[in-house]
Parts: sequence; C-alpha cells; structure tokens
Amino acid sequence: MIDPRTTVITERLKKTRRIIAVSSGKGGVGKSMVATTLSLSLAKKGYKVGLFDVDFTGPSTHIILGIPKTVQPTEDKGIVPAIVEGLEYMSLVYFVGDKATPLRGIDVSNALIELLSVTQWGELDFLIIDMPPGISDSVLDLVRLVGRIEFLIVTTPSLLAFEVVKKQVTLLCELKMPIIGVIENMKADNSHAIKQETIQLGLKYLGAIDFDTKVESSIGNPSKLLGTTIGETMEQIKKAALNEKVNLK
Amino acid sequence: MIDPRTTVITERLKKTRRIIAVSSGKGGVGKSMVATTLSLSLAKKGYKVGLFDVDFTGPSTHIILGIPKTVQPTEDKGIVPAIVEGLEYMSLVYFVGDKATPLRGIDVSNALIELLSVTQWGELDFLIIDMPPGISDSVLDLVRLVGRIEFLIVTTPSLLAFEVVKKQVTLLCELKMPIIGVIENMKADNSHAIKQETIQLGLKYLGAIDFDTKVESSIGNPSKLLGTTIGETMEQIKKAALNEKVNLK
Repeated sequence: MIDPRTTVITERLKKTRRIIAVSSGKGGVGKSMVATTLSLSLAKKGYKVGLFDVDFTGPSTHIILGIPKTVQPTEDKGIVPAIVEGLEYMSLVYFVGDKATPLRGIDVSNALIELLSVTQWGELDFLIIDMPPGISDSVLDLVRLVGRIEFLIVTTPSLLAFEVVKKQVTLLCELKMPIIGVIENMKADNSHAIKQETIQLGLKYLGAIDFDTKVESSIGNPSKLLGTTIGETMEQIKKAALNEKVNLK
Repeated sequence: MIDPRTTVITERLKKTRRIIAVSSGKGGVGKSMVATTLSLSLAKKGYKVGLFDVDFTGPSTHIILGIPKTVQPTEDKGIVPAIVEGLEYMSLVYFVGDKATPLRGIDVSNALIELLSVTQWGELDFLIIDMPPGISDSVLDLVRLVGRIEFLIVTTPSLLAFEVVKKQVTLLCELKMPIIGVIENMKADNSHAIKQETIQLGLKYLGAIDFDTKVESSIGNPSKLLGTTIGETMEQIKKAALNEKVNLK
C-alpha cells in the first residue's frame, strides 16, 4: 500500500541533494548542538543548507540560534522556511507551538507528515534534520516517508549513552538505513573506548569534540558558537562526515 | 470509564508507602543516576526500597548497578523483583528484553501496564521509578494508572535542559501531579540561574550535584558510586526531598 502523502513529500524534497539526520539513541548528548553547528559551518562555506528541527521531545535549535520571536516562516502556497544566519530554517516549534501539552504519538506523526508536506524548501545542497532521540513511532514514520535519509550518530564518551546508541545502530542496520558515522561529543579524557566500539560496529568514527564550557554561554549567539570547540572541530568533522562531494554552483 | 487494570495495579502497590518518579523533560541529564543513588542511599539507611526502571527509551539502571545477567526476577504468582544491593529491583529490560527493536507507543503502554500488574513488590517504604524522559503517551498512561506518584525533577545547569523541564513542569501542574522539587545535576560553576528559575516556577530547589568525572568510572560499581559526589550529595538532598517521614520499623 502506497501512502499518497509520500508522493507529496518526495515532490517537496526533490531539490534537496542530501538529507542528513543528526540522531542519537540517547537524549542530552548534544545532538541539537551538532546539527546546528554542522548547518552553520556548511552555510558559511557557501553551501545551501536547510535546518529542520523535528525533535518533538524538546525542539531547541531555535534557542541555540537565538531566533527572535519576530522571525517566523511565511505562508506562500505552503510554508516558506525562515532565513536565519544564511540557513533555511524550519522547526516543529512553529507548527505545534512552544506549549507544554504533549502530543500523543499519532499526533506527532501527523504533525511531522503535515510539516513535511507543506514546507517549501528551496534548492538545497544539504537538509540537516535534528531528529528526536531514540527510535519512536514518529522516527520510523519519518524514515518511511522521506526515504533517502543518511544518519549521523552523536554519542558522548559515556558508556550509558553508547549502550543506547548501539541499539539504535542495530535497528538502523535492520532498516537498511545508511549511517555516515559516529561523532563523540563532550569528550573530557583521552579514552579510545568509543572509537574502538564504533569500529567494532563496522561504522566510521568521525572524530571527537572536546568538552568546552564556553558552548553553554554561546547559546543564542551563532557566531560565538562557531568560535567554540564544537564550532572549530565541526570544520574538520564535516569533511570526514560529508566528503563535501556537492559542487558549489 | 474505569480501566479494570487500575484495580489490579492499585492492589499490587498497596504495600508501597510512597511512589517517587524521578523524571526529566530532557534526556541525558543524569536521571537514572539520580534514581539509582537515591535508592541506594535510602536502602543503606535501612528503608525498604524498590527501584523500578520503566525508561523504555534506554533502560540503564541495570548497567549502573552492574547487575550480572544471572540475576533475574523470579516467577511466583507474578514476577518477584530481583534483590540487588538491598533493593527490590525491576526493570522493563527484563520484560521486553535488551533488544534493539523499538516498541510502538501502544506496545510500550501495554508492556508498562502488564509489568505494573504482575510485579510483586514486597512491603516498601519507597518505590523509586526511573521514568522515561519527557511526557509521552506511556508516561501519561502510567500517571493515570498508578495515580499517587510524586515527581522529583532532574535538570542540568544548561538553559536548553531547563527550557524543556519548564514545559514538563507546566504539564505536571495541569495534571495536578505533586512535584517534590528540582535537583540540578552536573553543576560546573556557581551560577544561581537554575535555582532562581526553579523558585520562580514555585517549586522547591532541592540542591545541586557537582559534576564529577569519577561518576562515569563507577558505573557498574554501586559502592564506589556512593563515594562519588553524586552519592555524597544525595545524602543531603534526600533529606530535603523526602523529609524521611517514614518511620523505620
């Protein structure tokens, strides 16, 4: 059975060359921070980049980017993303509001599908998606509806985080989803444990981002963010992660 | 409409004096670590304590406690929790297995309800529940079915974590659920921001737990864990949090 909405979504995303899902089995590992700095770093290099926040468990990229309430997507035969720091920016927060009321699972799926169907992305080299943590129904729906998503996995050096990441990787492999590799965020020592575990899983270890207390104080200030350890390390990691195969026009 | 299962669940929990849900809007803030050290700390004091891990997004208390695979709950007119470090211990992990396959929302709710219905807790002063992050369908189901749950909220000093916590608090207030207070975990500076925000929300600020790199290396080693900053600080926080009104027999 073919879901008629997949046709609409495919149409909406046809001018997007690569779709990168920044993902983590576990919450609180810095996934949104990685998605945001990766997007900013690519845009600065001259690529056309969209950042799409679908983390319904707590959308936060708008806070990291410090987007004022006055900056909103506009309506024009659909929803046109806001332009923020050179990025086409869209977040579930504009669709469901910043309210406390939780969405029931089916409502989240419906909101995601609706948002994918109506958002008018321009021509993009990269669409970076800030995913919800874990693999919920809604993530499965997203994977099914969008199809060609590449996964970029974020973990911390913590054994607890990586145990959850391992499960996610197993599942993504079962679903035959391409995995770009693993980024180790908030590293505070010289342990090679995560690198070794990543290689054992048959995945590419993309690099480590050292823990930097300045990251917290750069929330809401994108140019300051690019000057922190995560911003600077992302310059290196994104080459390993994306190969930057896309030619600039 | 009364769900017949609530009667069974009420019956199962009738010998439990207080039910404390350790909860956080955001993942990765150390919720499982707080739930585990709180449980260990209470048990050491002589209270009868159950620890119930229902974090289906990635159950991890069994890893923190270092429970060997040979220690399992047993069956006897229901499921009898394992005894670990003086705690009655039960985890969703024993019910759904440690597999990668994600549970669809409705399956998670069914697994939770089933687990609540069959687990034979002994006489307990405290049942500490390690909740899933956020407020999902399954959390709402749990609140509805168990009823008398008190919430203990965990955050980090990060603005991003606290923004999500605020939404959760708003929702818990709408649901008229009692909130014990807020614990600020992994504190690395002297900022009073979270304390002030907590008080502004009308909640009790229970204290801060300083960031301690030794916590990571004590995973799987409960007695070592009680000697780290989180273990030592929990001694103080639990007094503020629980008032220890329960009389020891």
